Amino acid sequence: MTTEVAELRVSFDTVVDVESLALAAKHAGRKLALLPTAGKDRTLLQIAESLDRHADQVLSANAEDAAEAAKLVDRGDMSNALYQRLLLTSEKYQGMIEGVRAVARLDDPSGKVLAKTLLDDGLVLEKVSVPLGLLAIIFEARPDAITQISSLAIKSGNAVILKGGREVERTMRAVLAAIQDGLREVGTIDSAAVTGVYGRASVEELLKLEGIIDLVIPRGSNALVQHIQNHTNIPVLGHADGVCHVYIDAAADVDMAVAIAVDSKVQYPAVCNAVETILVHRDIAPVVLPALAAALEAKGVKLRGDTATSELLVRHTVELVGEDEWHTEYGDLIAALRVVDGLDAALDHIERHGSHHTDAIVTEDAAAASRFLDEVDSANVLHNCSTRFSDGFRYGFGSEVGVSTNKLHARGPVGLEGLVTYKYRLLGSGQVVKDYVGKDARTFKHERL
Amino acid sequence: MTTEVAELRVSFDTVVDVESLALAAKHAGRKLALLPTAGKDRTLLQIAESLDRHADQVLSANAEDAAEAAKLVDRGDMSNALYQRLLLTSEKYQGMIEGVRAVARLDDPSGKVLAKTLLDDGLVLEKVSVPLGLLAIIFEARPDAITQISSLAIKSGNAVILKGGREVERTMRAVLAAIQDGLREVGTIDSAAVTGVYGRASVEELLKLEGIIDLVIPRGSNALVQHIQNHTNIPVLGHADGVCHVYIDAAADVDMAVAIAVDSKVQYPAVCNAVETILVHRDIAPVVLPALAAALEAKGVKLRGDTATSELLVRHTVELVGEDEWHTEYGDLIAALRVVDGLDAALDHIERHGSHHTDAIVTEDAAAASRFLDEVDSANVLHNCSTRFSDGFRYGFGSEVGVSTNKLHARGPVGLEGLVTYKYRLLGSGQVVKDYVGKDARTFKHERL
Repeated sequence: MTTEVAELRVSFDTVVDVESLALAAKHAGRKLALLPTAGKDRTLLQIAESLDRHADQVLSANAEDAAEAAKLVDRGDMSNALYQRLLLTSEKYQGMIEGVRAVARLDDPSGKVLAKTLLDDGLVLEKVSVPLGLLAIIFEARPDAITQISSLAIKSGNAVILKGGREVERTMRAVLAAIQDGLREVGTIDSAAVTGVYGRASVEELLKLEGIIDLVIPRGSNALVQHIQNHTNIPVLGHADGVCHVYIDAAADVDMAVAIAVDSKVQYPAVCNAVETILVHRDIAPVVLPALAAALEAKGVKLRGDTATSELLVRHTVELVGEDEWHTEYGDLIAALRVVDGLDAALDHIERHGSHHTDAIVTEDAAAASRFLDEVDSANVLHNCSTRFSDGFRYGFGSEVGVSTNKLHARGPVGLEGLVTYKYRLLGSGQVVKDYVGKDARTFKHERL
Repeated sequence: MTTEVAELRVSFDTVVDVESLALAAKHAGRKLALLPTAGKDRTLLQIAESLDRHADQVLSANAEDAAEAAKLVDRGDMSNALYQRLLLTSEKYQGMIEGVRAVARLDDPSGKVLAKTLLDDGLVLEKVSVPLGLLAIIFEARPDAITQISSLAIKSGNAVILKGGREVERTMRAVLAAIQDGLREVGTIDSAAVTGVYGRASVEELLKLEGIIDLVIPRGSNALVQHIQNHTNIPVLGHADGVCHVYIDAAADVDMAVAIAVDSKVQYPAVCNAVETILVHRDIAPVVLPALAAALEAKGVKLRGDTATSELLVRHTVELVGEDEWHTEYGDLIAALRVVDGLDAALDHIERHGSHHTDAIVTEDAAAASRFLDEVDSANVLHNCSTRFSDGFRYGFGSEVGVSTNKLHARGPVGLEGLVTYKYRLLGSGQVVKDYVGKDARTFKHERL
């Protein structure tokens, strides 16, 4: 193990190696792509076992990372939230291992016949799902991302190259060593199929590998995601902003509206599907806003708002929101409140200031709900429930690869199906196109099989 | 009509107008997106009728374009193929109109419930297909692209902004005027939903409109597609190269192999799914190559090849292919022939020099076919049939939006489903996430409905 890690250190620290590592991973991925589901599941279970065996090494590597991080927190150079995220307890680590076993139980997204058509006698077209090839995951301080993404990659038949934040570098080396040991024990796939790169420069190297890397998945701050989106021609699965809204309609149940708005804000304010702006219909604002303000403040939420809101909340401290601030993602216990003239004004606000991620309406008016759900151009549109539900686990995807605010390929919470593409297989018996054109042309049957 | 066209000329020729036109189109698209299928079909039929009524104007505008083009052909500044493509006969124009009516008969790709899950009592998740929003089509000298793409856009609920080559500018103005007249006659959608921009600079303007334009579809030369892919952050649906292969295995039926290779090369050599390189297994090369060379030469194909090929074809003229030339897309009556040691060598060649578009194997050996279909990483992998079959019409898609060699969103020939995305609709009755976490948490049901 120790020699292993030392070897990895030597090879990984050289930036010139990023392309060769990626090529080796891609090559290993070709075999992985051909493995039947049972083979991939066996591999995952072996990796889980190996992770279990490596628990001491991983936890002590993480303790070193945590000790370094604690110094940064003390100096004010790292937030406590980040520190908590990178800290691995024995329980959290067991959760990571259980996560790998859970992925083995998920449905295999590749190798599915998505459509089958008889074009003509002896000429059958099949559309089959296949792995993308090589994924690159760039994440910050989340050790759980390593096992989660690696196992999702293996289950979908993709090789993966990981680049973690330097705050979790020791942890990542230890976890990857355990995963690669598991791969070696199974022996069917080259352990290069799951690999890691280190050092800041390696991100730029990865982002250049168009044609080798098929998909980049960033996991981290908006700044990280945006930087990646702007610096690569490789497709990126991710979302930079999560500026989500709850619109409380005139016909809302007030208690429900308050409960939903509060849950959307406070249940986990740092995540992308937490609400930032709560829009309140003018007619119901005098009733809703005082109740909402009290409930939010009881949970420690600071209030911001427009003039109409602050006039209705004279007993509360409401900091004014400038017109150019409505797109702010606070990611914290801060809520922006705005009084709107009605559904159309709410739709306009969301279109202008939202990030097309998750938006909810609270109303008992079915027609208003229906218009909201149809007309809001977001990945997730919700009626009478908390924005915090827009999540791959809650949606029942088993696992979440990421959240996308792109419209192409995958939108919203993305499950394993976001890691596959498809190919067309056409099985003939000597057919040529010239027989299907001009006079006496054969006609296609196009029968769905 | 004449005033109409004159007005369009004034507004369109100003480059600063590109963004406002796109915004107006996007806005009109929002209404189009909400239109039920019957409304969209009625619109298409009215457009077909309007196109019919405008036949004289369109054909005379095209005659002017053709007269200008003829001068360019005479001066050697335009290929005859391009001239033929832009020339509109009455019959071709009627075909375009019939194409619009045919799109009305296609299945509507939007508004489909793709999945439905009961998350918990009174909490139902729906995944619904929705239009992308605004498409931009950048094409060269193909008048038929205007009506085809416009009608596909309308059918899928998308607004569209078209930019045609200057060689068909008059034709495009006349066709768009007819389409917009049709839209005005129906009256439910603003005619701004289908709009055009002119002038070379407008392409660069369009490519900047990230966040307004949702998808760019280039239709034209590799150079055009590559330029667009490299100059925009908007997703591009297209393919730059079509370097396709036919691999003739040792176990191929010789007559079938020759017929397939010839059809793949000569049936329409200018298109992307025509074969460029024919790989022949060493064991069968002495038999196949002379027959193949004779058949290709009989169709006017010039032969290029490796040394082994030229040694086996001493009676033919075979120009040597340099190692760095195997990725060449001739798009013409030129075929590159290469002798390979076997399936693995063929797979390597295709991986190294292909464009992941369409590749075929000819063999009676089922195991070889299966490996080829599994291991070639192309959008279309074919067994015992011509590469020319990889096409949306032949695949039975009814219409073809484009061909994609991307792996994300859409791959291979793309039908109407390439113009939609999806959104998640979550219909609740007051649910909040805090009830689903911690002690006494409610558990999700996740029942497929």
